[in-house]
Amino acid sequence: MTSAPTSPLTDPWPKSPVLQTAYRARAAAVDLAPLPRALKDDALLAMADALEVRTKEIVEANATDVERAREAGTSEAIVDRLTLTPERVRAIASDVRDVVALPDPVGEVVRGSTLPNGIDLRQVRVPLGVVGIIYEARPNVTVDAAALCLKSGNAVLLRGSSSAYHSNSALVKVLRDAVGGAGLPADAIQLVPGESRESVRELMRARGLVDVLIPRGGASLIRTVVEESTVPVIETGTGNCHVYVDAQADLDMAVDILVNSKAQRPSVCNAAETLLVHQDIAAEFLPRALEALAAAAEFLPRALEALAAAGVTVHADERVQALAEAEGTKATVVPAAMEDWETEYLSYDIAAAVVDSLEAAVAHIGLWSSGHTEAIVTTSQAAARRFTQLVDSTTVAVNASTRFTDGSQFGFGAEIGISTQKLHARGPMGLPELTSTKYIVTGDGHTR
Amino acid sequence: MTSAPTSPLTDPWPKSPVLQTAYRARAAAVDLAPLPRALKDDALLAMADALEVRTKEIVEANATDVERAREAGTSEAIVDRLTLTPERVRAIASDVRDVVALPDPVGEVVRGSTLPNGIDLRQVRVPLGVVGIIYEARPNVTVDAAALCLKSGNAVLLRGSSSAYHSNSALVKVLRDAVGGAGLPADAIQLVPGESRESVRELMRARGLVDVLIPRGGASLIRTVVEESTVPVIETGTGNCHVYVDAQADLDMAVDILVNSKAQRPSVCNAAETLLVHQDIAAEFLPRALEALAAAAEFLPRALEALAAAGVTVHADERVQALAEAEGTKATVVPAAMEDWETEYLSYDIAAAVVDSLEAAVAHIGLWSSGHTEAIVTTSQAAARRFTQLVDSTTVAVNASTRFTDGSQFGFGAEIGISTQKLHARGPMGLPELTSTKYIVTGDGHTR
Repeated sequence: MTSAPTSPLTDPWPKSPVLQTAYRARAAAVDLAPLPRALKDDALLAMADALEVRTKEIVEANATDVERAREAGTSEAIVDRLTLTPERVRAIASDVRDVVALPDPVGEVVRGSTLPNGIDLRQVRVPLGVVGIIYEARPNVTVDAAALCLKSGNAVLLRGSSSAYHSNSALVKVLRDAVGGAGLPADAIQLVPGESRESVRELMRARGLVDVLIPRGGASLIRTVVEESTVPVIETGTGNCHVYVDAQADLDMAVDILVNSKAQRPSVCNAAETLLVHQDIAAEFLPRALEALAAAAEFLPRALEALAAAGVTVHADERVQALAEAEGTKATVVPAAMEDWETEYLSYDIAAAVVDSLEAAVAHIGLWSSGHTEAIVTTSQAAARRFTQLVDSTTVAVNASTRFTDGSQFGFGAEIGISTQKLHARGPMGLPELTSTKYIVTGDGHTR
Repeated sequence: MTSAPTSPLTDPWPKSPVLQTAYRARAAAVDLAPLPRALKDDALLAMADALEVRTKEIVEANATDVERAREAGTSEAIVDRLTLTPERVRAIASDVRDVVALPDPVGEVVRGSTLPNGIDLRQVRVPLGVVGIIYEARPNVTVDAAALCLKSGNAVLLRGSSSAYHSNSALVKVLRDAVGGAGLPADAIQLVPGESRESVRELMRARGLVDVLIPRGGASLIRTVVEESTVPVIETGTGNCHVYVDAQADLDMAVDILVNSKAQRPSVCNAAETLLVHQDIAAEFLPRALEALAAAAEFLPRALEALAAAGVTVHADERVQALAEAEGTKATVVPAAMEDWETEYLSYDIAAAVVDSLEAAVAHIGLWSSGHTEAIVTTSQAAARRFTQLVDSTTVAVNASTRFTDGSQFGFGAEIGISTQKLHARGPMGLPELTSTKYIVTGDGHTR
């Protein structure tokens, strides 16, 4: 006689405010699951309207966070991400309206058949239940995540950075009022109480109450959640992306794709961090590539990333160093250390190596990549086919920038994050990735 | 500058035999991933042939395990599961040939479109990589898991019960020889070395080397793996399944479905453990149901489960007790304790309660079920619809036995387990559930 794990729902009402929040989320999730799309869309429209109507209180609360962040000496790049203006609140409200337009994944029949014995079998999409999001100081994530979770019938537990606490509190208050006013359970959207690390820990251990945790942010945050959580986790976002320029390649195209992949927005996960160049074209391609990167670093508006000031630094293996020295370059070239091959710089730094073959490029990627996005630039159909077959990352790009790995670029309408793991979802996650399925078996008295 | 987690592949060659095995599996997985179906099918056929040709050494190795198990006083039911006869080995080989006939999930285009900018987007199925299976003393799982993983392009690490060590070693030797002989890497199939708990722990912590762990067995094994593993886990198998008999129901059908769900094979996860009866038909239905269960327990061949001897015991709430007393019954009726509602008996025990309404049945199930399979017996279309909407389990059956939740019953051809979690896969898992996907982005110089 084996005992199943104790139902977490039968514990006495817990003292912990975090677990109380999770209990309420669970109850809300039960109410949300069978709701038809129209009711959820009405609530989403109410949320968008409320954000616009109550912009003032949101911006005021945000001002407190911004002031404290400046006092704490936070970098301007992070302060910029934290800041909400009336225009930005309007843009966030507009994003919520975009979610209204997306199809509801819940109820979709994923597969179905009549079995030989006459039973009708249907696999249908259902909400995951309670989704926990752990994220950094970006208040827009609060609203994005709430909207995507509501649309997909999930209750959401939001645990943002404590440095955005006032902003998130104000936003969640506005959203909850709107959801409640639309007749849906306000507890569909909740902030995890407490600013301590302990409250995050409790969330991570709430297996049975929370169905999935999605950490969004830097590598160390994600590693902590993966290591300590008993709740299933979807890893997101770490991107050590590679651009491989093949022996046969249109070098103008290769320069464009490299510069776009590295420099169009260096601070994001789908920016390239390593350049691999086939030895046969290294001497011709590398000097041009380095100049183009240096020029990009020079001409991009500093305000955009506050990263450009330092120019571009190339962390080069010996062969790249030799070529750079022989030709001279405006880029700063330094010897690559072992760590460079696995580093997600998120800056105008790039690691660069010459490889003997496509297979050597694939091996380098297999060893060092975080498995996010790798691009090949080639005119050879055989090389394109081989690279896409052998590289095991969420996305493999042929003659296209790494920057396309993105939910809206892929046409998913919105994204809750980019999964870099293989289970459940891989790559940009839209609404269907926020669902599970169940099987419906219909008979008329069937027994085995 | 954020650092990605260190590549586990860049550690020096580890001293631990378990991790060495995982390294070899990783290398084999890289070779397996791009293989076309024909080569994998050839290897599977070679495996099936080898099992038949070398039956003698397999049965002899198994005899050692069986002898030790008997000496250790293991129950005959477990000894029976452990035992391999020439007929059973032939049946296992035949199961491998069935896998040959299944379509290869790898390479399937899951979705695809041309984006507005002209980029071609394809999402294709790829192997997970390295799959770890932790299981109990059933040597047939060794071969099943190896065949399903090979077919889906995954390398497998097998960690069976130490009580089946000789059987598993012999089976894996035969399979590896066959795979190697067919020109595929023998390391696609490996036994995790060591019989200690520490070797399981190492496997559970090999994140980055092992892509997923699938524990198959009792609730305590599964709980341990879920709690201690940093490798992503797919929970399988715990089944506290319910049969709910609605106010409007064909009572003959209800008796048949109840008896089939409970008694056709009580030791499996899709057997029913709790009966819920609507109050309006309780007085009419319950006495019949209890007699039918008692009769089933009496007439089923003892050898089948070695459970029937004790007859049926009904763990009853007060209303069921009152009805049973009033009518008299051959079944043993005892008061249900709180724990009974969450117990997976795997025997001729059943918990039983009268509920006020369909909603009360749904609430009971939501509180106590392990989320495996719940059945409703009803003639009401509205009740069937409501029950299937509200119950959140892997499978909801309408007028059909809970026993249908099964990969081969569902027409999947084979099953690696039944997932009771919501992430990645839910319900019976066939070959597609042993895959992930990757996106292929094809442009002609596209940049953002």
